[in-house]
Amino acid sequence: MRIDVLSLFPEMYKGVLEHSILKKAADNGAFTCRITDFRQYADNKHQRVDDYTYGGGAGMLLMPQPIFDAVEAVTKDTGTKPRIIMMTPQGTRYNQRYAEELAKEDHLIFLCGHYEGFDERIRQSLVTDEISIGDYVLTGGELASMVVMDSVIRLLPGVLGNEVSAHTDSFSNGLLEHPQYTRPADFRGMKVPDVLLSGNHKLIEEWRHKESLRRTLMRRPDLLENRILTDKEKEWLQEIKQEIKNKD
Amino acid sequence: MRIDVLSLFPEMYKGVLEHSILKKAADNGAFTCRITDFRQYADNKHQRVDDYTYGGGAGMLLMPQPIFDAVEAVTKDTGTKPRIIMMTPQGTRYNQRYAEELAKEDHLIFLCGHYEGFDERIRQSLVTDEISIGDYVLTGGELASMVVMDSVIRLLPGVLGNEVSAHTDSFSNGLLEHPQYTRPADFRGMKVPDVLLSGNHKLIEEWRHKESLRRTLMRRPDLLENRILTDKEKEWLQEIKQEIKNKD
Repeated sequence: MRIDVLSLFPEMYKGVLEHSILKKAADNGAFTCRITDFRQYADNKHQRVDDYTYGGGAGMLLMPQPIFDAVEAVTKDTGTKPRIIMMTPQGTRYNQRYAEELAKEDHLIFLCGHYEGFDERIRQSLVTDEISIGDYVLTGGELASMVVMDSVIRLLPGVLGNEVSAHTDSFSNGLLEHPQYTRPADFRGMKVPDVLLSGNHKLIEEWRHKESLRRTLMRRPDLLENRILTDKEKEWLQEIKQEIKNKD
Repeated sequence: MRIDVLSLFPEMYKGVLEHSILKKAADNGAFTCRITDFRQYADNKHQRVDDYTYGGGAGMLLMPQPIFDAVEAVTKDTGTKPRIIMMTPQGTRYNQRYAEELAKEDHLIFLCGHYEGFDERIRQSLVTDEISIGDYVLTGGELASMVVMDSVIRLLPGVLGNEVSAHTDSFSNGLLEHPQYTRPADFRGMKVPDVLLSGNHKLIEEWRHKESLRRTLMRRPDLLENRILTDKEKEWLQEIKQEIKNKD
């Protein structure tokens, strides 16, 4: 996969790209990433990239010219049909399904604004995707683009080793993960549930499945709404609701 | 505000903390941030921080001891009652209201896992908050913690200058932002709407308000559900729906 980032703050990406899994994935050839400061494409004397808003108002807007030209430059001669992704709080809410979709692409281009908004013509005529990573305001699109990159790159073939399984993670089966414990069995008086020490794999599997349901019910009941429950899951949910009632 | 981050990948934070608004805010004393590699608190010979999961399963889990001890170390002598925040896809969904709440605190501590999950006892007995920045899987909690830090720090007094107004941003009035344009008035044949060039502030204000409604209706109708609409807004929404119909 080829990734291009257009940002006025290329230095922000270094720590993330040069460490951890992303670094390893780049070294292994899973993706190449180029960060372009689109200021260099500004065709005015002072390399200005933003200007005042027509109709008045606080804040500056990114002008179309430097960004259109930068996108043309990074797509020249690539032979790819890229997804051109604007990071914006007004975009489509990002989720794991979206990550899986992007992971199939050959070329992603991220447009990142900083304080400023984007001129509407960039939105209308250049980008293919507008993505929001959540309902909160960030100082710029850089961190948001890193979040999307990280979630996509970890899905690329060969990136995740035995260290972790992409498929046992949260969300992949539609339920939150059950509680997990490691050594010691007793830490400052807090003990690991007996069943996990029993060696009985069937019981352990059932306990985990039920605790996944419990956690999902307590924290994200919305995830259960569209789920087709098995008979066993229905039975467990009844038990869990009764257990919660008995506690009150 | 005091911020402590416990992470096995301290280097990941450098690019983000040493550039842009966060750097300026730190220089101005709005917050201090310390990144602690909690591996140094592991009391075993090989400074191991993770171990296998009781009951079997792929993946490693972060052990309680190094993290409990690291939190105790960074809270010693601070005299603060910190929020201890675990970054996890199973946590409470982060949003702007949560950011505003955290911005009032004196001391935030972020626990960031990487590949591994956390031993349940950390969750139960140490943390005050479990936060998810969205329904997608990341390689670790580091980027998620940077997202939360960025959204909180920009709300601290004195951090945002005239460059940007925290209050005209998306979400602050419950609607998505209207389209915005900057120079040139005609870019490659794409023109700025006449009303924005008219100089008539009342008309501009009305156009913007209506276009905010339109964008919210098209992209995030959920934001309109709990909104108490003014009569004017109701009228505009009717017009917008008719306009959409006429287009089809």
